[in-house]
Amino acid sequence: MSKYWSKLAASLTPYVPGEQPKDRRYIKLNTNENPYPPSPKAIEAIRSAANDDLRLYPDPTCDDLRAAIARRHGLAKEQIFVGNGSDEILAFAFPAFFSPERPILFPDVTYTFYPVYAKFYGIPYETLPTDDEFGIDLNDYAKPSGGVVIPNPNAPTSRCLDLDSLIRILEANEDRVVIVDEAYIDFGGRSAVSLVGDYPNLLVVQTLSKSRSLAGLRVGMAFGHPDLIEGLNRVKDSFNSYTLDRLALAGALAAIEDEAYFEETTRKVVATRERTAKAIAELGFVSIESSANFLFATHPAFSAEMLFQRLKGKGILVRYFNKPRIDRYLRVSIGTDEEMDQFVRALADIVDEAGRIDQ
Amino acid sequence: MSKYWSKLAASLTPYVPGEQPKDRRYIKLNTNENPYPPSPKAIEAIRSAANDDLRLYPDPTCDDLRAAIARRHGLAKEQIFVGNGSDEILAFAFPAFFSPERPILFPDVTYTFYPVYAKFYGIPYETLPTDDEFGIDLNDYAKPSGGVVIPNPNAPTSRCLDLDSLIRILEANEDRVVIVDEAYIDFGGRSAVSLVGDYPNLLVVQTLSKSRSLAGLRVGMAFGHPDLIEGLNRVKDSFNSYTLDRLALAGALAAIEDEAYFEETTRKVVATRERTAKAIAELGFVSIESSANFLFATHPAFSAEMLFQRLKGKGILVRYFNKPRIDRYLRVSIGTDEEMDQFVRALADIVDEAGRIDQ
Repeated sequence: MSKYWSKLAASLTPYVPGEQPKDRRYIKLNTNENPYPPSPKAIEAIRSAANDDLRLYPDPTCDDLRAAIARRHGLAKEQIFVGNGSDEILAFAFPAFFSPERPILFPDVTYTFYPVYAKFYGIPYETLPTDDEFGIDLNDYAKPSGGVVIPNPNAPTSRCLDLDSLIRILEANEDRVVIVDEAYIDFGGRSAVSLVGDYPNLLVVQTLSKSRSLAGLRVGMAFGHPDLIEGLNRVKDSFNSYTLDRLALAGALAAIEDEAYFEETTRKVVATRERTAKAIAELGFVSIESSANFLFATHPAFSAEMLFQRLKGKGILVRYFNKPRIDRYLRVSIGTDEEMDQFVRALADIVDEAGRIDQ
Repeated sequence: MSKYWSKLAASLTPYVPGEQPKDRRYIKLNTNENPYPPSPKAIEAIRSAANDDLRLYPDPTCDDLRAAIARRHGLAKEQIFVGNGSDEILAFAFPAFFSPERPILFPDVTYTFYPVYAKFYGIPYETLPTDDEFGIDLNDYAKPSGGVVIPNPNAPTSRCLDLDSLIRILEANEDRVVIVDEAYIDFGGRSAVSLVGDYPNLLVVQTLSKSRSLAGLRVGMAFGHPDLIEGLNRVKDSFNSYTLDRLALAGALAAIEDEAYFEETTRKVVATRERTAKAIAELGFVSIESSANFLFATHPAFSAEMLFQRLKGKGILVRYFNKPRIDRYLRVSIGTDEEMDQFVRALADIVDEAGRIDQ
């Protein structure tokens, strides 16, 4: 606390990202990174863009990248926005579409950055309870509000809604914006991007961090009616004209265009996820049916915190949230088959050991 | 205007950056880019960082880059903040240190992003008049306020305050934050970074866009008391955890450490500026004494808008602001000697032509 901070700065409770440890080399299953490298074409494009033109500002409207994204989805460039990670896009979307006058709605168990944005901008919010298996009740989202944020699949629960459910939410909120946060959609869910042409109140947000293996490049994208994209641009241009550097623009464009590599690596992650879910089920774990690149799993007999600590001791980092309702769960990002085999073996040892002590 | 925009979004007047033309190849003297390429070491560092680790998130605290900046200035890492361009740092600093309760102060002729930030965050502001040569009256900045922003050198005027003047402003504002925006300081001014240890209310903001020839990489840095840096971090972590990508971190670090290249290129820009100022004076232009990488110049006989348009017709892009008090001036970024020779020749032709028509 400092006398120089604004009241707002003093009141903030900033978001805390997953550990990026520097003390030793871990099998890192804690921040939902992709175990496969980015497309070689993306790396090549970045190396080519690392040239003398870096002395020049990048294109502030990111036209080429937006055109490439639009082409992939059969949309117009005017329906596309790109940002410095999908977090930045959400940080622009909250003040663009939500107001201090009316509370927005999102699930009680979800991405913990949503309440942080809301507090930063003075936007009230109401969290709506998920059921015992973290499902949402669609009727809850029909009530009057200032807007809705639907993470799909949800994090950290990995649960996914189908398009019919999203349409019900969109139609119940015709006069306000529904943000569908699809950070994890490419690992099994059906994207709401196909609905963008029909629902002018829909903003879909995605990221290249997960399914394009580019967490280190910071690129996110949003899809919506040109009016919503213009709203995002109004906020962005009141904040920072040039949010994507030349290297990010070049790498993202190449990654978006390498469809074959994207399909191959996401398919591998999904296959490993299914294999891992089965293996930990044999150890007595119960996991939510996942449409993401992580599993959300609990064991009826053992504390998640204990499992987290012992895994860490064995050089395997997963995510544990010391929070009501989810403090019995671990969120485990999907690594390579080899990494997940090590994870399962470590978990088996811990369960075996802890089980013997319990007796 | 859209019914989905928040009242805030509808009320914004976004910043408009200088043209990034795509229609033809111009001699680009309109956005204060450096005519020399970035340090070869920076380009090499970026190419090396373009590897499979891009699948992993970058270090959210940017430790290595902050440590390198701290070393260069004999400061501690805790006194350094880095952001996605200095514009982003300013966008974090406004809500961190300024409040809706009391107006902040800055000069009437200055960087036009300041009022944009203020409006975005609902922070009132008062602009203080500069004199006929765009000098500021130090006494004006002693009045009670919510904080002060001093661009030094100022843009677009190129005028620079000495350290004694800054100390007077700092001492008159002990209870509030004074932001010194030093985007252009390396081209002749004396940096206030040396005052950071003595003035806990001082935040100095710099960029790698100009003097490090890295406008395309988007890296800015701030220097201040650890409390102020923590204030910036509280806002950043309420907005976006990972603002700098792995390539920007690597390139910026190498650029900061290549002191010899930095000194050589800034020296060349300064020499070319002096040469150009002399040459246009011979054509009848009056320019403000510049401590930046641009000239702010007016001609008593010819309209700046006419000169801007005719230069553009000849393939030379400069900046013209259609605004009260500065609409008789051109802001001309300093290019290479060869580019400035072409600029001066073009200007001589235009002046000659226009002069003959006038008679």
